[in-house]
Amino acid sequence: MKPEPVRIAVDAMGGDHGPNVIVPGAALALDAHPDLAFLLFGDEGSIRPHLARYPRLEARASVHHTEVAVRMDDKPSQALRTGRRTSSMWLAIEAVKTHAADVAVSAGNTGALMAMAKTCLRTLPDIDRPAIAALWPTIRGNSVVLDLGATIGADANQLVDLSIMGAAMAEVILGRDHPTVGLLNIGVEEIKGLEDVKKASKLLRESALPTFDYHGFVEGDDIPKGTVDVVVTEGFTGNIALKTAEGTAKQIGIYLREALGRTLLSRIGYFFARGALASLKEKIDPRKVNGGVFLGLDGIVIKSHGGSDAVATAGAIAIGYAMARNDLLSKMKNRLAHAHAALRASGTLEAAGGAERAASAS
Amino acid sequence: MKPEPVRIAVDAMGGDHGPNVIVPGAALALDAHPDLAFLLFGDEGSIRPHLARYPRLEARASVHHTEVAVRMDDKPSQALRTGRRTSSMWLAIEAVKTHAADVAVSAGNTGALMAMAKTCLRTLPDIDRPAIAALWPTIRGNSVVLDLGATIGADANQLVDLSIMGAAMAEVILGRDHPTVGLLNIGVEEIKGLEDVKKASKLLRESALPTFDYHGFVEGDDIPKGTVDVVVTEGFTGNIALKTAEGTAKQIGIYLREALGRTLLSRIGYFFARGALASLKEKIDPRKVNGGVFLGLDGIVIKSHGGSDAVATAGAIAIGYAMARNDLLSKMKNRLAHAHAALRASGTLEAAGGAERAASAS
Repeated sequence: MKPEPVRIAVDAMGGDHGPNVIVPGAALALDAHPDLAFLLFGDEGSIRPHLARYPRLEARASVHHTEVAVRMDDKPSQALRTGRRTSSMWLAIEAVKTHAADVAVSAGNTGALMAMAKTCLRTLPDIDRPAIAALWPTIRGNSVVLDLGATIGADANQLVDLSIMGAAMAEVILGRDHPTVGLLNIGVEEIKGLEDVKKASKLLRESALPTFDYHGFVEGDDIPKGTVDVVVTEGFTGNIALKTAEGTAKQIGIYLREALGRTLLSRIGYFFARGALASLKEKIDPRKVNGGVFLGLDGIVIKSHGGSDAVATAGAIAIGYAMARNDLLSKMKNRLAHAHAALRASGTLEAAGGAERAASAS
Repeated sequence: MKPEPVRIAVDAMGGDHGPNVIVPGAALALDAHPDLAFLLFGDEGSIRPHLARYPRLEARASVHHTEVAVRMDDKPSQALRTGRRTSSMWLAIEAVKTHAADVAVSAGNTGALMAMAKTCLRTLPDIDRPAIAALWPTIRGNSVVLDLGATIGADANQLVDLSIMGAAMAEVILGRDHPTVGLLNIGVEEIKGLEDVKKASKLLRESALPTFDYHGFVEGDDIPKGTVDVVVTEGFTGNIALKTAEGTAKQIGIYLREALGRTLLSRIGYFFARGALASLKEKIDPRKVNGGVFLGLDGIVIKSHGGSDAVATAGAIAIGYAMARNDLLSKMKNRLAHAHAALRASGTLEAAGGAERAASAS
C-alpha cells in the first residue's frame, strides 16, 4: 500500500525571488520525496511558466491563484490588513487549518508569517506563544535549537514547554528516541543565571518527563559542540546566537578564501585540496538546514530564508515533509498534554506560576 | 625622555598553569613592550625558578610572596572569605588601588576576580555595575564587544554607560577617533526588541554624545562583519554570543582538518597550502585577543583566560599595557562625567530612570 502523499502548501510569492526559485525548489524536493504533493498559492500567470518546465511536479501540484502578495518589508499589522484571507501567504497557512495541506512553507517576511500563522492557526492548548525552532549543524550532527526569535523573554513554564516541543521535534527529525535537552545559560560563577532559567531547570529536573533526558545547563559553545540534541532559550538570545554563528562561519570562509588565493603555493594547494574543500563547504552549507519551524501553533508552518535559492527551498520543504510524515503535530500535542498533566499533578506547574498562566490563557 | 614604565600587577598563581606559563608570558610581553614593569604576586618558591630563566624580566619584576591562592573552582563568596587581603589575586588588584601598579592581570576564576575587584576598587561614580569588554576579531579588524557576562540584564541607562565606556576603550585600543557604536538587537519585524534596548537607542540618538557615533541597532551577524567598532549588549546575551562564536570557529577548524586529511590529494593540497593555512590559523587565534577587560571600576583589571598559555598571557598583558599607556581610566571617567552632565542637563537621564538610579547608587 502506498502511503498518503504529504501535501505542502507553498506561498509561491514569498522570498526575494518568488516562483523563480520556489517552483524549481519544489521540483527538487519532489525528486527526493516522490510522495510529496503541492498546493501552490500565488499569481498563476507567474507560476505556470515555471511549472511547465517540471512536468512531474506539474502533475503533483495544484495552482491556487491570488493577486495579493505580502511584501518583504510589510509590517505584520500591514500584512494582516492587506493580506488576510487573500494573500498567497495567508492562503497557504489556511490550507493547513482546513486540512487541505499538512504543512505550509513560505519564504516571506518572518514577522508577517508569524502574525498570520498565529491569527489563522491559533496556539495549542496551554501554549501562550509560538516559537521558532531550527536544525543547527554541530560536530556531532544536527541539533534542534529554539526559540530563534519568535518571542522575547520566556518564563520558567514557557522554557519547559519549549523543551517538550523541541524534544518532540528532535525525535521526529533527528530520529532520537530520548533526546537530551539543555537550557542555555552562562557559566560565570558569580552570577548563576536568570531566575527563570534556574526555575525551569528545577522544574525539568524534578518532573523527569519521560520523553527526553534533561541534561542541565549548557553554554554558548555547547551548541556547535552538539553537547545536547535540543538547546532551549528565549527568542532574543536564540536569535543573537544563531546570527552570530552564521556570521562567524561566513567570516572564516572569507579568511580561508583569502588565505588560499594569496600565494602561488597556496593556489596550488587549493587545486589539490579543492575536492576536500568542496565537501567542507557542503558541510557548512546553510541551505541544507534552511527552515525555521514555527512550533506551538495548531498546524506546522515552515519559514524558508528570504534569500533562499532552489536548493535551500527544497531543504525547507524537506523539513516540512519529515515533520508531516512523522506526525510531529500529534506527537507534540500528546507530549504537551501528558507533561502538563504530570506537572499539574505534582503541583510543580502551579508553584512555578501556572496559575497566572492558566488565567492569562483563558 | 623615557616614558614612565607601565606597571602590571600579575596574579602569578591564577589560571590552570600558574607561574609555569604566567612568567614566560610576562617575558614575552616584555619583549614586545620594553617599558613594562611587573609586580608578581604569589608563592615566591614557585615563581623564582621560572623567573631565573628570564634575566631581563627578572630585572624588571618584583616578587611579592603570599601562600594564599584562589582556586579555579572557588565560589566568589568563598574566595573573598579565604583570600581577601591575602591571596595573590587580591594583592594584585590592591596594587592598582594603592597606585603601586597601573593594571592588574589574573587568569584566576572570573567570578572571584570580579567579586574581589568590586570589593577592592569599587565602581566609578554613577556606574552601578561593572562590565566585561573584549576585542572581537572581525573581517574589518577588531571590534570591542561588551558586556560579556559581568551582569545579567541592563536598563537603558546602563546600556548608555556601556556605550560610553566601550567607545572610550575603542578609542584607546583600536585608535579610532570617533568610534561607531551599535546596540545588539534582533531584526524580526514583528517584535521590535527589548524595551530597554529601544529606550537606550532613543537616548543615544537624542543625546548625540560627542565622543562616538551612534550607529543604531545591529544584529548578531554584524559582530563578525565588523559593522561597528563597539557592540553593546547586556551580559547574558553577550556571553552566549561570544561562546557561540568561539565554538563555531572551533567547529569549522575541526571540519577543515578533517577535510584536508581525508584523501591523498587533499593531503598534497595541504602540503602546498600549509603556509596560507597557518596564517589563517593565526588570524583566528583566540590567544591574540585574550583578555576580558573589567570596565566601570576605579581601576583596570584584565581577566586572562584560565587555560592561557604564555602567548595568550602576553596578549592579555599587552591589552593592559595599551589601556594604561593611553590612560583609559582617566579618559573613561572624563567621558562618563561629561555624558552624564549632558544627559542630566537635557533631562533625558531622569526621564529614563536616572532618578531611581541616583537613589539606589547613594
